[in-house]
Amino acid sequence: MNLSKRVRGMQQSPIRKLVPIAENAKKQGKKVYHLNIGQPDIETPSEFFNAVKNFDEKVLKYSFSQGIPELIDALIEYYKRYDINFENDEILITNGGSEALLFSLIAVADHGDEVLVPEPFYTNYNGFSSAVGVNVVPITTKATEGFHLPKKQAIENLITPKTKAILLSNPGNPTGVVYTPDEIQMVADIVKEYNLFVIADEVYREFVYDNLKYTSFGNIDEISDRVIIVDSISKRYSACGARIGSIASKNKDLIKQILKLCQGRLCVPTLEQVGAVELYSVPQEYFLDVHNEYQKRRDIVYNALKEMPGVICEKPKGAFYVIAKLPVVDAEEFVIWLLKEFDVDNETIMLAPAEGFYATEGLGKDEVRLAYILNEDDLRKAMNILKIALEKYPNKK
Amino acid sequence: MNLSKRVRGMQQSPIRKLVPIAENAKKQGKKVYHLNIGQPDIETPSEFFNAVKNFDEKVLKYSFSQGIPELIDALIEYYKRYDINFENDEILITNGGSEALLFSLIAVADHGDEVLVPEPFYTNYNGFSSAVGVNVVPITTKATEGFHLPKKQAIENLITPKTKAILLSNPGNPTGVVYTPDEIQMVADIVKEYNLFVIADEVYREFVYDNLKYTSFGNIDEISDRVIIVDSISKRYSACGARIGSIASKNKDLIKQILKLCQGRLCVPTLEQVGAVELYSVPQEYFLDVHNEYQKRRDIVYNALKEMPGVICEKPKGAFYVIAKLPVVDAEEFVIWLLKEFDVDNETIMLAPAEGFYATEGLGKDEVRLAYILNEDDLRKAMNILKIALEKYPNKK
Repeated sequence: MNLSKRVRGMQQSPIRKLVPIAENAKKQGKKVYHLNIGQPDIETPSEFFNAVKNFDEKVLKYSFSQGIPELIDALIEYYKRYDINFENDEILITNGGSEALLFSLIAVADHGDEVLVPEPFYTNYNGFSSAVGVNVVPITTKATEGFHLPKKQAIENLITPKTKAILLSNPGNPTGVVYTPDEIQMVADIVKEYNLFVIADEVYREFVYDNLKYTSFGNIDEISDRVIIVDSISKRYSACGARIGSIASKNKDLIKQILKLCQGRLCVPTLEQVGAVELYSVPQEYFLDVHNEYQKRRDIVYNALKEMPGVICEKPKGAFYVIAKLPVVDAEEFVIWLLKEFDVDNETIMLAPAEGFYATEGLGKDEVRLAYILNEDDLRKAMNILKIALEKYPNKK
Repeated sequence: MNLSKRVRGMQQSPIRKLVPIAENAKKQGKKVYHLNIGQPDIETPSEFFNAVKNFDEKVLKYSFSQGIPELIDALIEYYKRYDINFENDEILITNGGSEALLFSLIAVADHGDEVLVPEPFYTNYNGFSSAVGVNVVPITTKATEGFHLPKKQAIENLITPKTKAILLSNPGNPTGVVYTPDEIQMVADIVKEYNLFVIADEVYREFVYDNLKYTSFGNIDEISDRVIIVDSISKRYSACGARIGSIASKNKDLIKQILKLCQGRLCVPTLEQVGAVELYSVPQEYFLDVHNEYQKRRDIVYNALKEMPGVICEKPKGAFYVIAKLPVVDAEEFVIWLLKEFDVDNETIMLAPAEGFYATEGLGKDEVRLAYILNEDDLRKAMNILKIALEKYPNKK
C-alpha cells in the first residue's frame, strides 16, 4: 500500500520542520529567541477568556456549519469600519485562516488548475494547493523592489486557460509588503479581463505602518463578485491558538457552495467562537497600542539589519515580518548552525529559512524570514545575537 | 469565473440541508424532536469545562501541529484499555473526526483513485472524497441482512488497480451494524491480498449493545501497518462542539506524511485539547451509564418501529442510529411534510432521509435514519408522533 503522490510531494513546513532541533537546543539548557514563527507575545484580550469561562451550557453541542450568528454579525460590523458591507449569507466561519484558504482553493479550482501567487509566499499556500491538486504558479517579486508586484504584462504572461485565481496576502506574509492602491487596481483589472477570482488573505489588515493608506480588495466594487476575503483572529487579536477564521464574499453562490464543505466538517468549535465574538468588541485603542508596538519593533529589527555587513533588505511596511538576504551560502544550514552549534552566553535565535517561501527553484536560498514578535528588550538581544553569529559563521559567501 | 466542478458536484449534507425548514417550523411555534442528527443530549463531563476554565495563560498561542503531548499521552492510555498499543509518534490530534478522515483520504489516494465503502455510509465520506478527487465505490449492504458485509468475492469484484483503501465505520453510522470478528478478519485478508489500507472510523467504539464482542481493526496485528484509526471525542464524551479527533496508525511513515497536512493548518485549538485531556480520565462508570442509557433508548425506538405497519428494520447493535424502511414513496418528501404540514398537539419530529447515505442511485429512497439521542420521555413522544404521521401521510406506497 503506497501513500499518495500528493502527500509525498508536499514540502514540510519550512517554519515548523526545524522545531525539533530547537526543542533539542532548549533541552540542553539554551535559551532560544523565536523569530521564526508569527506567534505574537501580545496578550490575548481577556474578553476572550471571560466569554469562554462564562459559557454555561451543560452539553457542548455541534453548532451551525456556517458559524454562530453572533460571530457572523460581529464580522459584519467589523468590516463596516473598512467600508465593506457584507450580509449574513456572505460570511462563513472557518477553522482558522488555513481552512478558509483550503476551502477557497477547492471551490475555485479543479485538479490540475492553476492559481497565481506572488512569491515569496506564505508557505502553506503551496502545501494546501498540492494536497488538493492545484498548481501554484509564482509571480516572482524581489527584495530589491520591496516585493512589490511586477508590471501587468509580466503577470498576464503567466495566465493560461487553467488559471482560476490570483491568491495573495496583503499586508504580505512573509515579505511585509503593503500593495499600493495602483497595484490593487491592476490586479482588479487583470481578474476582470481574464475572468478570475481573487483570494485575498488580509489577516494582517491592522498591521500597516508609516501611515500608509491600506486598500482592501473588499473596497473594489467592480470586482466584488470575484473577491474572496480570507481572514482570521489569530494575529488581529493575538489568538493564534483559537483557530477562528472566516471567508467573506459578495458572491452568494460561492458562499453557498463552500457551505457544503463547511457542512462536511460539521462546525467550528463552539467555545472558540463564543470567545471570538467578544474580541470583536474590544475597543479600537487596542489596535492603536498594538500597532505602535509593532511599528517600534519593526524599526528595531530593520535598523539592526541595515547595520549588518552584507545583509540586504527593504523596510517592510506591514504585517510583522521581514525577509533579509544574508551573506551566507545556505540559510537553512545557517539556522541549524545557530541552534546546534552557536550561542552567546547560552542564548541563540531561531529564524525561518526563506527558500520554502519560493516556488521557483534556487530562489531564497540565502534569505531568512524574521518575525518581529518579541518585546523590545528580547528583540534587541536577538538582533545582537544575529550580528555576532554572522561575524562568526564559517560558511559565508 | 466559474466555480470548480468538484464543489458544484458535492451533494449537500442530507442531514443538514433540511435544517432551515426545521428552523422555520420552530419559528412558527412548533416543537421539533430532532432524531435527524447525532447530537447526544447527555451532559458533557464537567471535567472538560473545568479544565478550560482553569486555563490561565495570557496568550492563546499556536500549539503543536501533532497535538499537545498530554492529549496524545491520554489517547495512548485509552487505547491500551482495548489492547492496542500506540507510541507518541503514531497519533495525531485533528479538528474532529472529520479532519482525520479528510487527511487520511488525501494521504492514501490520489486524484482519480478509489476507496471502497460499505453503503449506506456516513454521508460526509462522500463529500470529502469528491472534494479531494477520490471516488467512493460502494459495497452495498442491506437492511434485511442487518447491514452486514457481503461475501468476500463480492467485495473483491469491486477492486481495481485504482483501489487504495477500504473505509468503514464500526459500529456503523448510519446503520448501527457491529461487524463480527469474522467480518473484520475478512476485510483484513482482503487488504493484505490486494495491498490496501483500512481507514477504520471507530468513533462509536463504546456504543455496542447486547454484550456483543467488539473487535477493533487495531487488534489485528498482521495488518497493523495498513490500519488507520479515525477517532473523535464527539460521541464518546458527548462533546461534539469541541471538534477534537485523532488519527492513529502503527505506520509511522504514514503519520509522518499526514503531519505535513497538520502543519499546513498549524494546529488544533489549544483550549479544546486542554479540555479533552481531562475527558480521558473520566471514570469508566461514565461509559457504563451512557451505554445503558443508549441501549434502553435503542430498545424504545426499535420496539416502536417494529409495531408500525409497513416499517422494516433490523435491530441495530451499535452506535445510536437505526435505518428504517418506511411505507412511503419518498422519504425526503415525508420529512419535509412532517416539518411543514404535520403536527400532534403542535409537536413534530425531524428525521434524516437515507437516500443521501447511498452512492448507488435509487437506493434508500424510502428509508430514513433515526438517531436515538433523546431522553426516554421525548423518545416515546417522538415515536408516537411518527406512528400517527405514518397513518395520516397521504403519499404512501
